[in-house]
Amino acid sequence: MITSTNNPQVKRIIQLNSKGKARKMARAFVVEGSKMFLEAPVKWIEAIYVSQTFHENNRELLIGRDYEIVSDPVFRHISDTMTPQGILCILKIPEYTLEDLLGGEGRVPFLLVTESIQDPGNLGTMFRTAEGAGVTGILMNHSTVDLFNPKTIRSTMGSIYRVPFCYTEDLGETVTCLQKKGIHFYASHLKGSISYEEENYREPCAFLVGNEGRGLSDETAELADACVRIPMEGQLESLNAAMAAGILLYEGNRQRRKEKGYC
Amino acid sequence: MITSTNNPQVKRIIQLNSKGKARKMARAFVVEGSKMFLEAPVKWIEAIYVSQTFHENNRELLIGRDYEIVSDPVFRHISDTMTPQGILCILKIPEYTLEDLLGGEGRVPFLLVTESIQDPGNLGTMFRTAEGAGVTGILMNHSTVDLFNPKTIRSTMGSIYRVPFCYTEDLGETVTCLQKKGIHFYASHLKGSISYEEENYREPCAFLVGNEGRGLSDETAELADACVRIPMEGQLESLNAAMAAGILLYEGNRQRRKEKGYC
Repeated sequence: MITSTNNPQVKRIIQLNSKGKARKMARAFVVEGSKMFLEAPVKWIEAIYVSQTFHENNRELLIGRDYEIVSDPVFRHISDTMTPQGILCILKIPEYTLEDLLGGEGRVPFLLVTESIQDPGNLGTMFRTAEGAGVTGILMNHSTVDLFNPKTIRSTMGSIYRVPFCYTEDLGETVTCLQKKGIHFYASHLKGSISYEEENYREPCAFLVGNEGRGLSDETAELADACVRIPMEGQLESLNAAMAAGILLYEGNRQRRKEKGYC
Repeated sequence: MITSTNNPQVKRIIQLNSKGKARKMARAFVVEGSKMFLEAPVKWIEAIYVSQTFHENNRELLIGRDYEIVSDPVFRHISDTMTPQGILCILKIPEYTLEDLLGGEGRVPFLLVTESIQDPGNLGTMFRTAEGAGVTGILMNHSTVDLFNPKTIRSTMGSIYRVPFCYTEDLGETVTCLQKKGIHFYASHLKGSISYEEENYREPCAFLVGNEGRGLSDETAELADACVRIPMEGQLESLNAAMAAGILLYEGNRQRRKEKGYC
């Protein structure tokens, strides 16, 4: 049992929880709670840590697994949450190719592309909603907030395990490359001339959504095949970025279900 | 100039910022920042406080207004934010009637009704999105989180000034009363038999959305004229509550715009 906060494994967990650089170097990140443990792809799991109390009460969850037991006070120390559930895992950061984002055979590519989203909760909520809407992959530019920070991970509600994703160093180049594969890009823009529900999202397509404060950069908006806007009544300046993404993705989902005759 | 944290006005602001009970007793709440100050209905404003630095740099914003100057350190003390803008107001809590939520002449009632929403950010985001979608009013049951706590206020992005709202002690009674006025109620429910876009929201209607973890209570869902569900692909258990509300409200908005021939 690990009983000291000086234990090197304890130090490693704290580093991975608190520092993006440490996660990048180690190509690893931390998830917490039973749900995140149970849903984690087995191949991603590097290590499992449980508190002494969790171990006593949940032995059946741990059958056939390698894990370390940590004293309750030390577990509270390594946890990123106020009320730790008593289980956390170190996971390998998965490597997806651009091709993986297209969904494979039998699926019509449906992508979400984020530019410089800064709020961890927004990015996590985008993953969660994207899974629900049937997105085949998420592409993020390099200045989008770190997906592997604990707050983002929590708000994905497990979608991080199921929606393939990539970061790109050069968003323009990657978009052009995907356009050559037949993907249509729709930029979400307050100045878009077309109301979002007027476009056809049944074909291979992607939504570009921008930063919370500034929206999409002109440079990125110009790459798009069309700029669409979500109409707003009242005196509102903008919608929350994750909300805007969700409304667009679910319009795509609605159209795709309609075509299939599901509704 | 107020220079002491012992000043009774300072104590009052801190109480109003931190305690729901204090807000309820005083029928007042606090808003922060230039945007929230500039958009505030003049009739709601009870008092304006500015930091010394804000006062020096923004005198033109304050012309014709009564305000108190607060030393910079004391302003940091009363502010609820990490990087205070230097202006905050005490506002009266407005009193709306149920009738006010229906939008008045020439508008087709369109309501959002929340049951026991607990996350302040979710409630604020619901207000923001509701304004954009053209909601005429928001009804909250008594165990919905306090709308006037600083985090909720911030996430409304000013919508709190423009979307009429009521809390109700008896949600069932209020829903029945609104049904008698011809409002159709749609419960958002994971077990709903109808996909949300199959219903007609052009008539007077309301969406019922429930608590983040538990969803709508059976009791409340049974009051509804229909239960609708947002289809989800993947293995997701649910969408974020504010996201679900936003997707429903924007489907209502889409149908209403379509009828008017705007799109």
